[in-house]
Amino acid sequence: MKTQVCIIGGGPAGLLLGHLLHAEGVECVVLEQRTPDYVLSRIRAGVLENITVSLMERLGLDARLKAEGMPHDGFNLADGERLIRIDMADLVGDHVWVYGQTEITKDLMDAAPERGLQVIYEAEGVALHDVAGDAPYVTYRLPGDEDDRRVDCRFIAGCDGFHGPSRKAIPASAGTPYELVYPFGWLGILADVPPCNHELIYANHERGFALASMRSATRSRYYIDVPLTDRVEEWSDDRLWDELAIRLGPEAAANITRGPAIEKSIAPLRSFVFAPMRYGSLILCGDAAHIVPPTGAKGLNLAASDVHYASEALIRFFKAADNDAVATYSDKALARVWKSERFSWSLTKLMHRFPEGGAFERAMQVAELDYIANSRAAQTTIAENYVGLPV
Amino acid sequence: MKTQVCIIGGGPAGLLLGHLLHAEGVECVVLEQRTPDYVLSRIRAGVLENITVSLMERLGLDARLKAEGMPHDGFNLADGERLIRIDMADLVGDHVWVYGQTEITKDLMDAAPERGLQVIYEAEGVALHDVAGDAPYVTYRLPGDEDDRRVDCRFIAGCDGFHGPSRKAIPASAGTPYELVYPFGWLGILADVPPCNHELIYANHERGFALASMRSATRSRYYIDVPLTDRVEEWSDDRLWDELAIRLGPEAAANITRGPAIEKSIAPLRSFVFAPMRYGSLILCGDAAHIVPPTGAKGLNLAASDVHYASEALIRFFKAADNDAVATYSDKALARVWKSERFSWSLTKLMHRFPEGGAFERAMQVAELDYIANSRAAQTTIAENYVGLPV
Repeated sequence: MKTQVCIIGGGPAGLLLGHLLHAEGVECVVLEQRTPDYVLSRIRAGVLENITVSLMERLGLDARLKAEGMPHDGFNLADGERLIRIDMADLVGDHVWVYGQTEITKDLMDAAPERGLQVIYEAEGVALHDVAGDAPYVTYRLPGDEDDRRVDCRFIAGCDGFHGPSRKAIPASAGTPYELVYPFGWLGILADVPPCNHELIYANHERGFALASMRSATRSRYYIDVPLTDRVEEWSDDRLWDELAIRLGPEAAANITRGPAIEKSIAPLRSFVFAPMRYGSLILCGDAAHIVPPTGAKGLNLAASDVHYASEALIRFFKAADNDAVATYSDKALARVWKSERFSWSLTKLMHRFPEGGAFERAMQVAELDYIANSRAAQTTIAENYVGLPV
Repeated sequence: MKTQVCIIGGGPAGLLLGHLLHAEGVECVVLEQRTPDYVLSRIRAGVLENITVSLMERLGLDARLKAEGMPHDGFNLADGERLIRIDMADLVGDHVWVYGQTEITKDLMDAAPERGLQVIYEAEGVALHDVAGDAPYVTYRLPGDEDDRRVDCRFIAGCDGFHGPSRKAIPASAGTPYELVYPFGWLGILADVPPCNHELIYANHERGFALASMRSATRSRYYIDVPLTDRVEEWSDDRLWDELAIRLGPEAAANITRGPAIEKSIAPLRSFVFAPMRYGSLILCGDAAHIVPPTGAKGLNLAASDVHYASEALIRFFKAADNDAVATYSDKALARVWKSERFSWSLTKLMHRFPEGGAFERAMQVAELDYIANSRAAQTTIAENYVGLPV
């Protein structure tokens, strides 16, 4: 097969990029290792910035998002006692949308056949070749294949996440990894119960972090941080609900509705950036190039801003024979990546108990939450990052 | 001797408190271990917030401060390349005063005899007694004394710094120390040369921290951070000027005037809070209760805000027979202490290289400086803390 852009990964980043290129007449194909059902079974973030919503709008795929998604004008930080509301509408005149990443993926997936975007599922053993030059190609097999299939292309877009093959196709000497691994994980529970609060609550309690989030008016998503040595089997639903009630503080606890877990899992937290984000004809987008800890809900939105820059660069390359946007893609994308990495890292440090932090560092968290509670400027820095800095 | 308040320590905190009490007719005496010349030879901070200036104004001792001090409308953060100006006048409509702590001390010291404030110098072996009850007393000896002298009083004000006897007179079970020791020290040089810039510059260079500060138009104060294992003898004037020129960045370096050191020393950096700040009839003020790293110039100003609360409490006790202000002194003072501790700690973390910090944490410093350079809200948080949060 021959195409202009071979997109590796059929999650939200790859599908968004595919639709954006296809809409402008750039030929592309999306290769996804898993089945559609598997892709949709992955539970991820649920808070969308404007950049993500605006891309769905540009594609005309925002109808369900606008109908079922919930605009949130504010969210809350909690210190185990009080709620400190970050009023985004008042502070920066903006809001975010609560709408599951899974729903975005579904909307993009459902639209692919009708728009003629080619997505190949169950593409196994994907390998990237000759990425340094102008004629790269990708090989893969479908179930039952005895021989490799081959996609020849001008560019490869690596949208295949942290563990995918794309980043690994870049020689170690051609980039620098920056990484921080946190000494705890997030234990998440998804349940069909109404949320305890109409807006999100990020809590830093003496006993640790908790997050009250939601997917809809009847589906809640909660998290607590746990030692990396904990196993999900050690956390019965009851034990987890008890712990959430303590950490979220009395006001939220009074409104928690308990219910059986639809999904329950522990995810590690990591900050990671690989720079630069382009090598020859390979462009990295989203988790393939960077990971943020989930505090602040930047992961999907950062992938969307990468896709924004990448689609612009590739469209200009093929439609205007202009190579400059490809050449500057990495610098443009990274400028925003570093800002989101910083925000996610700083909010993670503010809201979690670190095993190595002593009494003084704990006192600094309490003092910072108290400062935020009393400073409009401090609240504004949080609000402007949460709604998303300008693209 | 019998008095109402025995003040231990004749530095700026003790002298300020003494003058404020004396002006309202509260009897007090100041005991200082050293000679006046020794007290004046200690080189300390040089940036005054409004709280400090307003106390000097209230005492009518602000004439020289206003004549010789320099109001600064802004200061700069540097990343080794560019200067990021924090325009306090524009951001928060306020400014700070550059006027050496030594000059404040001198003004307070000179005014003591004419106003009848009793300051006893060379008071050795100061010891606090019966601080838990209502009739505490202090013992000391003057040079040549064979026996202790004794001051009976109603309150003792501990203004005797981190190493003084006051805090040590509080039983360990009656308070909690919070402490963080930083893995570097500040090497400072004082020289009679014009400053390289009309405003302060705090720089975080790849090689480490640097600060360009001043005492007057002809006297400069510079610092760099050095490993705690460095000795001042290893740093010739030339080596230090060379290092400053690199770390402050090209713009500042071009304007550095070199000159011989009047003073050169290495000071460790520490964050420390002892809470509560009162035990029985003993009230702690300034460094006796808390230490901040010098980044952000909060040390003297925090002592001044303690003295503000302490003088108010003691005047109300003696003039209005009102014990409430003494009872709430610690809570009021600590609320501001924690905020200043937080600011000093966060600015120290932003502007220094930490030996244990990896490439990711360095990238976060660069990203934060870049964010500050582009966000008015972020600049406002720095400005409002630098000029001093409301008392």
